[in-house]
Amino acid sequence: MADSTCCVTSPRKRLMIFSGRSNPALAAKIADKLDVQLGSIELKTFSNGEIYARFEENVRGSDMFIVQSPCDSINDELMELLIMIQAAQLASAKRITAVMPYYPYSRQDKKSAAREPISARLVATLLEASKVDRVLSMDLHQGQIQGFFEIPVDHMTAVPMLADYFRYKDFGGTPLVAVSADAGGVKLAKRFINRIPGCDLAVLTKMRPDHNVAQTMHFIGDVRDKIAIIVDDIIDTAGSITSAIETLYDNGAKEVYVTATHGIFSGPAFDRIGSSGVKEVVVTDTVHVEAAGCDKVKVLSVADILARTIRNVFEDESVSEIFAGDNQLF
Amino acid sequence: MADSTCCVTSPRKRLMIFSGRSNPALAAKIADKLDVQLGSIELKTFSNGEIYARFEENVRGSDMFIVQSPCDSINDELMELLIMIQAAQLASAKRITAVMPYYPYSRQDKKSAAREPISARLVATLLEASKVDRVLSMDLHQGQIQGFFEIPVDHMTAVPMLADYFRYKDFGGTPLVAVSADAGGVKLAKRFINRIPGCDLAVLTKMRPDHNVAQTMHFIGDVRDKIAIIVDDIIDTAGSITSAIETLYDNGAKEVYVTATHGIFSGPAFDRIGSSGVKEVVVTDTVHVEAAGCDKVKVLSVADILARTIRNVFEDESVSEIFAGDNQLF
Amino acid sequence: MADSTCCVTSPRKRLMIFSGRSNPALAAKIADKLDVQLGSIELKTFSNGEIYARFEENVRGSDMFIVQSPCDSINDELMELLIMIQAAQLASAKRITAVMPYYPYSRQDKKSAAREPISARLVATLLEASKVDRVLSMDLHQGQIQGFFEIPVDHMTAVPMLADYFRYKDFGGTPLVAVSADAGGVKLAKRFINRIPGCDLAVLTKMRPDHNVAQTMHFIGDVRDKIAIIVDDIIDTAGSITSAIETLYDNGAKEVYVTATHGIFSGPAFDRIGSSGVKEVVVTDTVHVEAAGCDKVKVLSVADILARTIRNVFEDESVSEIFAGDNQLF
Amino acid sequence: MADSTCCVTSPRKRLMIFSGRSNPALAAKIADKLDVQLGSIELKTFSNGEIYARFEENVRGSDMFIVQSPCDSINDELMELLIMIQAAQLASAKRITAVMPYYPYSRQDKKSAAREPISARLVATLLEASKVDRVLSMDLHQGQIQGFFEIPVDHMTAVPMLADYFRYKDFGGTPLVAVSADAGGVKLAKRFINRIPGCDLAVLTKMRPDHNVAQTMHFIGDVRDKIAIIVDDIIDTAGSITSAIETLYDNGAKEVYVTATHGIFSGPAFDRIGSSGVKEVVVTDTVHVEAAGCDKVKVLSVADILARTIRNVFEDESVSEIFAGDNQLF
Amino acid sequence: MADSTCCVTSPRKRLMIFSGRSNPALAAKIADKLDVQLGSIELKTFSNGEIYARFEENVRGSDMFIVQSPCDSINDELMELLIMIQAAQLASAKRITAVMPYYPYSRQDKKSAAREPISARLVATLLEASKVDRVLSMDLHQGQIQGFFEIPVDHMTAVPMLADYFRYKDFGGTPLVAVSADAGGVKLAKRFINRIPGCDLAVLTKMRPDHNVAQTMHFIGDVRDKIAIIVDDIIDTAGSITSAIETLYDNGAKEVYVTATHGIFSGPAFDRIGSSGVKEVVVTDTVHVEAAGCDKVKVLSVADILARTIRNVFEDESVSEIFAGDNQLF
Amino acid sequence: MADSTCCVTSPRKRLMIFSGRSNPALAAKIADKLDVQLGSIELKTFSNGEIYARFEENVRGSDMFIVQSPCDSINDELMELLIMIQAAQLASAKRITAVMPYYPYSRQDKKSAAREPISARLVATLLEASKVDRVLSMDLHQGQIQGFFEIPVDHMTAVPMLADYFRYKDFGGTPLVAVSADAGGVKLAKRFINRIPGCDLAVLTKMRPDHNVAQTMHFIGDVRDKIAIIVDDIIDTAGSITSAIETLYDNGAKEVYVTATHGIFSGPAFDRIGSSGVKEVVVTDTVHVEAAGCDKVKVLSVADILARTIRNVFEDESVSEIFAGDNQLF
Repeated sequence: MADSTCCVTSPRKRLMIFSGRSNPALAAKIADKLDVQLGSIELKTFSNGEIYARFEENVRGSDMFIVQSPCDSINDELMELLIMIQAAQLASAKRITAVMPYYPYSRQDKKSAAREPISARLVATLLEASKVDRVLSMDLHQGQIQGFFEIPVDHMTAVPMLADYFRYKDFGGTPLVAVSADAGGVKLAKRFINRIPGCDLAVLTKMRPDHNVAQTMHFIGDVRDKIAIIVDDIIDTAGSITSAIETLYDNGAKEVYVTATHGIFSGPAFDRIGSSGVKEVVVTDTVHVEAAGCDKVKVLSVADILARTIRNVFEDESVSEIFAGDNQLF
Repeated sequence: MADSTCCVTSPRKRLMIFSGRSNPALAAKIADKLDVQLGSIELKTFSNGEIYARFEENVRGSDMFIVQSPCDSINDELMELLIMIQAAQLASAKRITAVMPYYPYSRQDKKSAAREPISARLVATLLEASKVDRVLSMDLHQGQIQGFFEIPVDHMTAVPMLADYFRYKDFGGTPLVAVSADAGGVKLAKRFINRIPGCDLAVLTKMRPDHNVAQTMHFIGDVRDKIAIIVDDIIDTAGSITSAIETLYDNGAKEVYVTATHGIFSGPAFDRIGSSGVKEVVVTDTVHVEAAGCDKVKVLSVADILARTIRNVFEDESVSEIFAGDNQLF
Repeated sequence: MADSTCCVTSPRKRLMIFSGRSNPALAAKIADKLDVQLGSIELKTFSNGEIYARFEENVRGSDMFIVQSPCDSINDELMELLIMIQAAQLASAKRITAVMPYYPYSRQDKKSAAREPISARLVATLLEASKVDRVLSMDLHQGQIQGFFEIPVDHMTAVPMLADYFRYKDFGGTPLVAVSADAGGVKLAKRFINRIPGCDLAVLTKMRPDHNVAQTMHFIGDVRDKIAIIVDDIIDTAGSITSAIETLYDNGAKEVYVTATHGIFSGPAFDRIGSSGVKEVVVTDTVHVEAAGCDKVKVLSVADILARTIRNVFEDESVSEIFAGDNQLF
Repeated sequence: MADSTCCVTSPRKRLMIFSGRSNPALAAKIADKLDVQLGSIELKTFSNGEIYARFEENVRGSDMFIVQSPCDSINDELMELLIMIQAAQLASAKRITAVMPYYPYSRQDKKSAAREPISARLVATLLEASKVDRVLSMDLHQGQIQGFFEIPVDHMTAVPMLADYFRYKDFGGTPLVAVSADAGGVKLAKRFINRIPGCDLAVLTKMRPDHNVAQTMHFIGDVRDKIAIIVDDIIDTAGSITSAIETLYDNGAKEVYVTATHGIFSGPAFDRIGSSGVKEVVVTDTVHVEAAGCDKVKVLSVADILARTIRNVFEDESVSEIFAGDNQLF
Repeated sequence: MADSTCCVTSPRKRLMIFSGRSNPALAAKIADKLDVQLGSIELKTFSNGEIYARFEENVRGSDMFIVQSPCDSINDELMELLIMIQAAQLASAKRITAVMPYYPYSRQDKKSAAREPISARLVATLLEASKVDRVLSMDLHQGQIQGFFEIPVDHMTAVPMLADYFRYKDFGGTPLVAVSADAGGVKLAKRFINRIPGCDLAVLTKMRPDHNVAQTMHFIGDVRDKIAIIVDDIIDTAGSITSAIETLYDNGAKEVYVTATHGIFSGPAFDRIGSSGVKEVVVTDTVHVEAAGCDKVKVLSVADILARTIRNVFEDESVSEIFAGDNQLF
Repeated sequence: MADSTCCVTSPRKRLMIFSGRSNPALAAKIADKLDVQLGSIELKTFSNGEIYARFEENVRGSDMFIVQSPCDSINDELMELLIMIQAAQLASAKRITAVMPYYPYSRQDKKSAAREPISARLVATLLEASKVDRVLSMDLHQGQIQGFFEIPVDHMTAVPMLADYFRYKDFGGTPLVAVSADAGGVKLAKRFINRIPGCDLAVLTKMRPDHNVAQTMHFIGDVRDKIAIIVDDIIDTAGSITSAIETLYDNGAKEVYVTATHGIFSGPAFDRIGSSGVKEVVVTDTVHVEAAGCDKVKVLSVADILARTIRNVFEDESVSEIFAGDNQLF
C-alpha cells in the first residue's frame, strides 16, 4: 500500500533552563556555564499567598530544566516548583527535569515513630504527580531516596570538590582527620578521605532524644594535634555541629573545620557558628546562602557540576563520567 | 470443603476528626457540634520551615476527617494537609476526608493565557497523590472543580444561610436587590434571591486587564432607593468590591451590603472596606477571619453545616438532604 | 569502556492525519490545507452495531492526528474515536492527537443536582484511558474542561473568525450590539466585541427549570434600532435562541443575527430557526452541518485554523501565535 | 493516650440494583428473584444523542449492581453504563458491580491482522477507567477476557441450563449429538455433553475469509439419524449457523436444533433461521430478544443464575458453589 | 519575545541489544544478523540466590532490546529480566523492548477453576510495572495474551518457517497431513497447511483431567499411508504428543513428525520422544534446547525473523511486511 | 423518595492465613498462636518450573494474610507470593497482607554504582502491581524501604526479643559489649543496648571492595575481657561476621556471640561459623533455618510477635503497642 499520506520532518532537541525564585544566582551561573540564557518566565505571589507562573516564550518540544532548591521558604518554593512543572507539561514541553540540588524534607525519609509521615517520599510523590520526567539532585541525605521515585534520578555529589578544597589548602603539614558527626555519616566521611591522601577518620555518635536537638554520647578515634574536619551532608541549625566542635577541641584537636554540601543555616545557626571555635565552615551554593550572615562561612559553587550534568543529560552522554575515577561515589 | 480456617469478628466504624493549624476554631466548633473530641496530633514547623506531623493516637481503621482550610499561609497549610493525609494513610486509616471548606487556588481553574498552569487542578492532583479518599468543600469558585477529581467531592453551600441572614434582618420595608459584581457571578446571585421573596437582581460587568485589578465597565439593572447586597463567593483584596460599592451608591442605592462565603481579606482588604461606604460585610468562617480586623465584618459559622455533612457521610446518609428544598443548589 | 555495540540512525517525524466517520469533509479540508493525503483506514459497523477499525498503512513512529467530532450519532462516533486511538497505540504510533473540534458532553461539566455524573469529565477519562497523547478542541463550553485532562489540551477559538464576518459585513452603518443569551456567556460576547470597534453588549438571563427547556426572565442592555447578534458557543435545539430572538425584536432590535461555533441543530432546531425572525445563523463546520437543512444557516470553515494548529504542534511551534493580537482569548 | 475522640457505629451493607435501558426485563426478573425493588434512576437521551443519568435515591455506601447488557444499540448502551458507573462512584456508592451478562465487542479479543484494535480489551479499559469495582458476565467468548481486567470478574455459565433443557426434552429415544460449528468451540460442546449422558460430539470447521462471512470446509463426526444440536456461545447474523444446519441435514441428521447463550439476532438472523430447516433455536435472555421476531426461537432466563450470584457476591459466599458438580466449567 | 534561550541539537537514535542469561546463543545470533555487538552487562547470582545486574556502558537515550526467554529456571530468568528492565529505565534508556520469544506462564492464560490465578496476565503486569515499553514475542499460546498488555506487543510467528521446512523436505511423493493434537490447535494447523499445497488436516481431541496429564478421546480425519505432522505451539513434557504419535500410527500413518515453535522439553520429554516412533521433532531456538538431549530433535533458528523485526521496530518500518503474503497470520 | 429498594445485612470480617512454601513452619506457629487453622491451598511446581496456586476454599471478603519469606529459592518464592496475591485478589479477598518477615533483595536498596537497579524497590513495585494491600515485615535492612511502597507497611522488630535473650542469659557477671560490625549498623546496636542495662558499645568499620567480600579496616571501642555480642540485621555468607569475630578475639574479647534477626546462612556460612571461635549465633525464624546445619546456631521464634501484629491489624488495634516502652524502635 502506498505510504503517501504523511509529511516528514527532522526533529530537533532544544535545551531550555528556567529558574524558580529560590536560588536564582545558582541558576544564572549554570546557564552561564552552558552558554545559554535563562528562559523568560513570569513568577509572582498574589496578595493571598497563591503563586502564579507563566512561561513567556514557547516551550513546545523543549528539553526543559527547572532550577529550584526549596529552602528558605520551603513550602512556597516547593509549590512554585510543582506549579512550574504543571504549566510546562500543559504547554507541551517534551521532557521536564527538576534540578533540585537540595532535596527538601530529605531527613524525613523513614518512620522513626508510629504514625509519622515519610515526607521525603511525599515530595517524590508530589513531583511525579505534577508530571516531572526526571530529577537531578545532589548528596541526598540517604541514597534510598532515589528509590522513592519511579522516574530516573541523577544523583550527583559535591564531596570530591569539598575534599579537594581541603586537600590543596595549606595546613603547614599538620595531619588531617575527617570526623563524622554521627555514626550514620561514616560512609560520607570515608568518601571524603578517599580524595585526601593520609587523612584519618574519627566518629562521634550521639543520641538524639528529639528532632533538632542533639546530644553527643560516644567519641571514637584520635584527633589530638590534628586539623579536624567535620564532614556532613547538611548543616541546619548547627546545634549538633557546634557541640561536636567543642568535643573535638576538648579532645585535643588543633583546629576544627566543618564542611557540608548543603548549608541551610536556619534559626540560630550563624550565631552558634560565630561563637564557636570553628575556623571555617565550607559549604556549596546548592541552597541560597546569605553571604553576609557569617564571615566564617565559605561558599563553593556547584554550578559547574550541574551544568556538565545537564549538558550530558541533554546529549545522552554518561553522567557518571563527570567524576572520572570516582565512579564508586554514586 | 470445610471453611474452618478463619476467625470472625464484626467490624465497627470509628469517626475521628483532626485539625490542621489553619482554622482550629472551626474544627473545634465542628467537633463540638458532633459531640466528639478533636483527635490528638503533634504538628510543628522546624527551624528550616519543614512541617512535621504525628498522630498521637491509634487511627487504624478509622473514618478520618481532617479539617484544614489553607488561606493565611496558603502553601504551608496545603503542605501540612498533604503531610497529614500521607501520615494517616500510612497509619492505616480506613478512609480519609479532607474537609477543606475553602479550596486554595480555586480561581486558577483554567488557562486564561498560553502557558499558564491550572493550579486548582494541581491542588486536586496533589491531594489525590497523597491518597486522600474524599474531599468536602464549600461554594467552589466553579462547580467544574469537582471534575478535577477522580474521587467523590461533597460540595456544600453557605448561600442559603447567608441569604437567610438578610431575609430576616429588619430593613424597614426597603426593597432589596442582589448585585452580582461580575457577569460570571449571576448564577450565585440567583441562588441568593431564590431564598428571599421579592428580592431583585442587578449585574455589574467589568474588564479585568490584570489579575487582582478590577475596572467596572457596564452596569445593568436598577438599584435606586434599594438595599443593594453584593453577592460573591470570595472577598480577597476587596478591590473590585469597593469599586462596586461606589458604583452602586452612584446609581442611587440607599444602602450597600456585601456578602460572600469566603472572607480572605488579604492585603489592603480591611482598609478598603473600612474606608468604603458599605454598611456591613457578611462572611463565614470557612477561613479564619481575624475578628478585630474590621468592625464592619460579621462572621457567620458554617460549623453546623459541615458537622451535619460529616455525620451524614459517616452514616452513609444523603448529604443533599441537608438543604431540603434547595436540591438545585448543588 | 568502548561504546561499540550500537547502530545509530537519525530519527524522522512523520505527520499522519486520519479521519473518523463523523466529519470527513472537515478532515479532508484540513489535509488539503496541510498538503497531505488523509491516511488510509478501514472503518465499518458490523450488523450488531459494533465498530471495526484497521489502519491500512504503517503508522509506526508517526505523529498521528485523528479528526473526529462526535455529534450526529454521538456515542457511536465517540466509541469509534476510542477504538481508533487504541488501534493506533497498539500499532506503535509515536504520538496520537485527538482532533475533536466539538467536545461531546461538554455541557455536562459539573453536577447541577445530587447524584449526577460529570460526563464531560468521563469523556476525558475515556480518552486518556484509550492512551491518547493530546487533544485539540475548539471553544470548549467551559475552559475548565482543560483541567479534566492530565494530558495537554490545545484549546483554539473560532470567535475571531466569526466576529470578523460581522465586522466586515455591510450593515449600512446601523450600530451593532452583541447579545449574550445567558449570563454565563457574557465572557464569550466580550471576546466577540473586542474584535468589532463600537459594538455594544447586552445580556439576557433566564431560568432553566429543566434541561433543554429555556425560559427568559431578565433582559439587560439596549438593543433598540440596532443590529443584534446573539453570540453563543453551541446551538443545539435552538429553543433558548429562538425565544431570545423574539425578546430582542420585542425590545426594538432592527435585525437579529445569531452566531456560534458549534452548530448541532438537533431535533426541532431547523424548524425553529426557519420560522423565527432571525436574518442569518452563522456557525462553523466543527460538526457536520447538513447544508440543505435550513437556508438561513451559513457555515464558515475552521479547517484553516485547525490545519495551522496541527502544523505548529507537529513542528513544536507556538499555537498561541496563530491568533496574534488575541493572546488573551485562550 | 486516651482514645476518646471518636464516635463509633456499626456499619451495614445495602444491596441495590439498578437497570440501564438495554435489558430492563432481565433486571426486573433478577430483582424479583432477590426480593428487592429496582433502584430509582432517571435515564434519558437528549435531542443531540447525549445520555443523561441521575440516581433518584441515596446510594452512599451501597453495594450497587448495575444490570446492563449492551446489544441493540451497543455503543449507546455501553456509554450509558459508563455514565451510570461514574455517577454512582461520585455519589459514593461503596462498591459497583457491572452486571453485563453479554460482553460487548467480545469477539474482537485479539489482533487477527496488523493494526487492528483489541476492542474487547478496550471495553475492559473503559469500564475500569469509569471506576467500576467488579464485573459479572456470562459465557465470555474467550475466558482470556477475564485477564483483560485488573478487577475481579465473576464468570458464570448458562451451558448447564441449556444442556438440561435438551436432556429432559422428549426426543423419543433418538440419540443426540452435540455439534460444534467450528473447531474453536469444541470446548464448549464438550461442556454441553458432560451434562447429557450418551450425547455424542461432532465438529464442523470452516474458513472465514472475511468478518461475518462464513464458509464451511471440513466436517468431522457422525450425525446420521441423530438429533443434532449445534452448540455455540453467540448467535449473531446466523450466517454460519444456517450453513451448518444445511450441512448437518446433508449428512443425514434427523433433526437439527441450535442452542447458544447469547441470542443477538442482528440483521438477517431471524429471516435466515425462519427459512432454515432448524427445529428450534434455544437461547437465553442475557440480551433482550424480541419474542415476536421468530417463532422458532425459545428464550430461557438466566435471571435465577444471576440473582444467586449477586446474592453470593453480596454475602461473600462462594460463587462456584452455584454450579455444584460443575466446578470445572469456569 | 525572542526565543534566544536555548541551545539546539539534532537527536540520534541508538540501537542496543543486551542479553540475559537464559538464551545467550540466540541473542548472539540476533546481534550478528544485525551486525552489532551485544551490549556489555554484568549479571551474577549472589550466594543467597539474589540476582544482580549492572550495565557496563552508557545506555542513556538508547533504543534498548533485552533478549530473554525465561524457560530453564523460569522464575529466576523472569526476575532477571525485570531487574534488567528496571536498571535500564533508571539509567535513562529511551525505550526498552523485552524480546521474549517464549512467553513464560503462557498456558495459565485464564481461570479453568475457581480461585486460580491468571499467571500469564501477571507476567504482563510485572513487565509493565518494571517500566518496559514494548514486548516482542512469538507464537503466543493464545493471541489474547496481547490484550493483557497496555503497551504494544509485536507478535511474530515461526509457523511459515516450520512449514517451509516440511514443504521442501523430500518425502518421495507421499501425501502429507497436518495433525492438530487437540481441538484448540486447529487454527495453528490451518496456518501451517496454508503454506504447503496439498497438505490435509486431521484433529485429535482429548480430555485433560488434570494439568500435564493427557488422555486422547476422539480422532477425526484420515492419516492412513500419509506423512503425519503433528503441529503444536509448545512441546513441554511431551506426554500428549507421544500418545498422539501412537494414535496416528495405530490409524495407519506411514511416518509421524512433530513440529512446534517452542521446544521446552521438560522432565521426561527427551525420554518419551526417544522411545516413541516419531521420525523427527522440529522446533526452534526461541528457548535454549540442549542439542545433545535427543538426536531426533532438530532446531531451526528464529534469529533472522527476530533480527528483521528489531530492525524494523527501530526504523519505524512495518513489522507485518516481514511475512509478505502472510498478513493474515497475526 | 422512599429508600425501599435495598436489602440490608451486617458485614463480618474473616481472618484467613495462608502459607506459601518458603517457611511453612513459621506460618503454622503463627496460626497456632492465633488459634486458627491455616487456609487450604494447592501449590505445585510444574515440570517446566512454572508455579501453580489455587485456593481450595472460599476467600471472598476475607482479611487474608499470606505468610511467605522468600529466601532459599528466593525468586521462585517471590514469584509464588505474587501469584498467590493475584489469585486472592481475583477471588475477591477483601484485603491481602503479605506477611514477609524477611524482605528479599533488601540490601539492593540504592544505587552504589551507575546503571545499577534498585532491586528492593522493584520488589515493592511488583508486590503493589500484584495488588497486595499491605505488607508486614521485620527489621528491614533500611527503614527507608517503607518509603518504596505507597501502601502501608507494618515494620516490626525482633531486636528486643534478641536483647532479652542475652540480658537474662547467665554470663557470671562478665560485662557485655554490643558490637556493630560496620558503621551503618550502629543504630541497630544502640537499640540493642537500650534493653540491656550496662551494656557497652563498640564499632567495626570496614571497606567492602566488592559485594559479599568484606575487609575490616577500623576498630573503635573497648572489648577487652568482655562478652562481645556482634549485632546485625542479616547473616548471609557470614564472611564479614567471621572476620569480625577474629578481630574481637584479637582485641581481647573474652567470648564472642553473634545475633541477628535474619539468618540466611547461604553458601559457606555454616562452615565459616563452625570453624570460627564464636560461642553461639542467635537468630530468629523469619527465614527457614535448617536446624541441623550448625550446632552453634540457636533459633528464636518471631511467631508470637507476628501473631500479635496480625491480630491487631485485623482488629484495627495499634501495632506499636506490641512493644510498649519501645515506641522509639520503629
